[in-house]
Amino acid sequence: MPLIVVGSVAIDNVETPLERRDNLLGGSATHFSYAASFFTSVRLVGVVGADWPEQHTEMLNSRGIDTSGLHVVADGKTFTWTGRYHDNMNDRDTLDVQLNVFGEFDPVLPEQYRRAKYVFLANGVPAVQMKVLSQVPGRRLAVADTMDLWINTAREDLDELLKQLDGLVLNDSEAKLLTNTENLVTAGHRVREMGPKFVVIKKGEHGAMFFGEHETYVLPAFPTTDVIDPTGAGDSFAGGMMGYLAEQDNFDPATLKTALAYGILVASYNVEGFGLERMHSITRKDIESRMAEYRKMLSF
Amino acid sequence: MPLIVVGSVAIDNVETPLERRDNLLGGSATHFSYAASFFTSVRLVGVVGADWPEQHTEMLNSRGIDTSGLHVVADGKTFTWTGRYHDNMNDRDTLDVQLNVFGEFDPVLPEQYRRAKYVFLANGVPAVQMKVLSQVPGRRLAVADTMDLWINTAREDLDELLKQLDGLVLNDSEAKLLTNTENLVTAGHRVREMGPKFVVIKKGEHGAMFFGEHETYVLPAFPTTDVIDPTGAGDSFAGGMMGYLAEQDNFDPATLKTALAYGILVASYNVEGFGLERMHSITRKDIESRMAEYRKMLSF
Repeated sequence: MPLIVVGSVAIDNVETPLERRDNLLGGSATHFSYAASFFTSVRLVGVVGADWPEQHTEMLNSRGIDTSGLHVVADGKTFTWTGRYHDNMNDRDTLDVQLNVFGEFDPVLPEQYRRAKYVFLANGVPAVQMKVLSQVPGRRLAVADTMDLWINTAREDLDELLKQLDGLVLNDSEAKLLTNTENLVTAGHRVREMGPKFVVIKKGEHGAMFFGEHETYVLPAFPTTDVIDPTGAGDSFAGGMMGYLAEQDNFDPATLKTALAYGILVASYNVEGFGLERMHSITRKDIESRMAEYRKMLSF
Repeated sequence: MPLIVVGSVAIDNVETPLERRDNLLGGSATHFSYAASFFTSVRLVGVVGADWPEQHTEMLNSRGIDTSGLHVVADGKTFTWTGRYHDNMNDRDTLDVQLNVFGEFDPVLPEQYRRAKYVFLANGVPAVQMKVLSQVPGRRLAVADTMDLWINTAREDLDELLKQLDGLVLNDSEAKLLTNTENLVTAGHRVREMGPKFVVIKKGEHGAMFFGEHETYVLPAFPTTDVIDPTGAGDSFAGGMMGYLAEQDNFDPATLKTALAYGILVASYNVEGFGLERMHSITRKDIESRMAEYRKMLSF
């Protein structure tokens, strides 16, 4: 089934302890789309400026991603993020953020996108995320990401959004902040009580936790030594997960768990190169081969 | 097969955000012994003072732990540790440490212990750990724990010890410190290159990683909401792991992975009560029941 993703499309400048790279294809919706494209057809809704390099769109199209929902503002500039990673490659400082055209992002879905069954709202203003939901009334599965900024500054809207979602994906520190608790298991259950049918807590190098009505579980990350650039790992995770669900056109508990595992594996590839470079070099076969290793790792 | 453990036996005073408890049965070798006793016969070597409560020894004996190697110094005082946990129940401050008789600990194994095949050296001075090894020349499997203090102050001895070990168990921050690297996968491999045939990195609430000649894997922690007192979780982990290996009298790769899982599950019980209280309330059947849940959690 086709999968719609709405969210940021950006130009990233990334500095790691070893290297700095500028003008990378970045953004939440971008990393998500790329990851999901290994599993299903993806329709991307976002906004960029006149400075958007044509080769970035070509890179997305090369994986079959439908970019007809990518709006170009002729007199605008693209959202730009510049960040620097610490030695541990987990913590990072945002050196510069220029929201530019993304600051006025008011997504209007093309007519042919509005019958979508699978929808992902990448991290963004909760009011805008809700506006997207209202455009896909026939959806079967709507999942969103969020962040500390909205928990702190748009809590009322976020609370309303949570009631409309099937699933929420957020990271560990955000889950603790949202529920004012330090135990992640307690946090996960409490977020679920706020509305979503299921909650996924992303723990970065420690994997991900799932909270459903009858299920609580943890899956570890795939151990990789080649952490080159973690930017977009969480979005790739969500893309792998949602892509698999849309491919299967099913989200029963067993399919959700397998989807979580695919998310983890796609994210493990994402971090092995700057921007989407490593992802650009792999195929579904590589993902399946890592899946076989991962299943073996978890069997005893 | 009988399992020998040599290390600290202590009286703990523990403060958590909710409660303070004094005079708990504590110490590395104690938590280890208790955990291992669900699987095999355990022989504890340690030292206490005249203030050691008889009921603590009785509690160990109640699980069949052989305490004939627990030396009582008539004019001495028992090692005492007092600590306070932060709200996150992971970080803690040591408020007071009184090494007392443990500061002069010079373990001499009873004759009947010296033919032991399975030996665990709980965290302690590396020179003393080596002295223990020299007393069990016919051992089949010797595993040790260590800590930042020895990495920083007794590095030469520690390096020598590592060459004599079959396995080393240490936590994530210690592995990073020992190898001067931030990536845990890299750290694990580097520690193994220092001597031990296998290395286990404990990640607390995030589980544990294993590094062998042909294997690298991660197993997640068992998700529990009831974190009452994490003291001794790492020692319980090691106890469950070594206890299972001694029970099976085997440490091939498959048995090691199952042992790691048992360590994780026993540790998940350990944190559910102050000191050894929760452990005192469970049976092997409870561990097996959690194991069934854990296997299910990791299957998809």
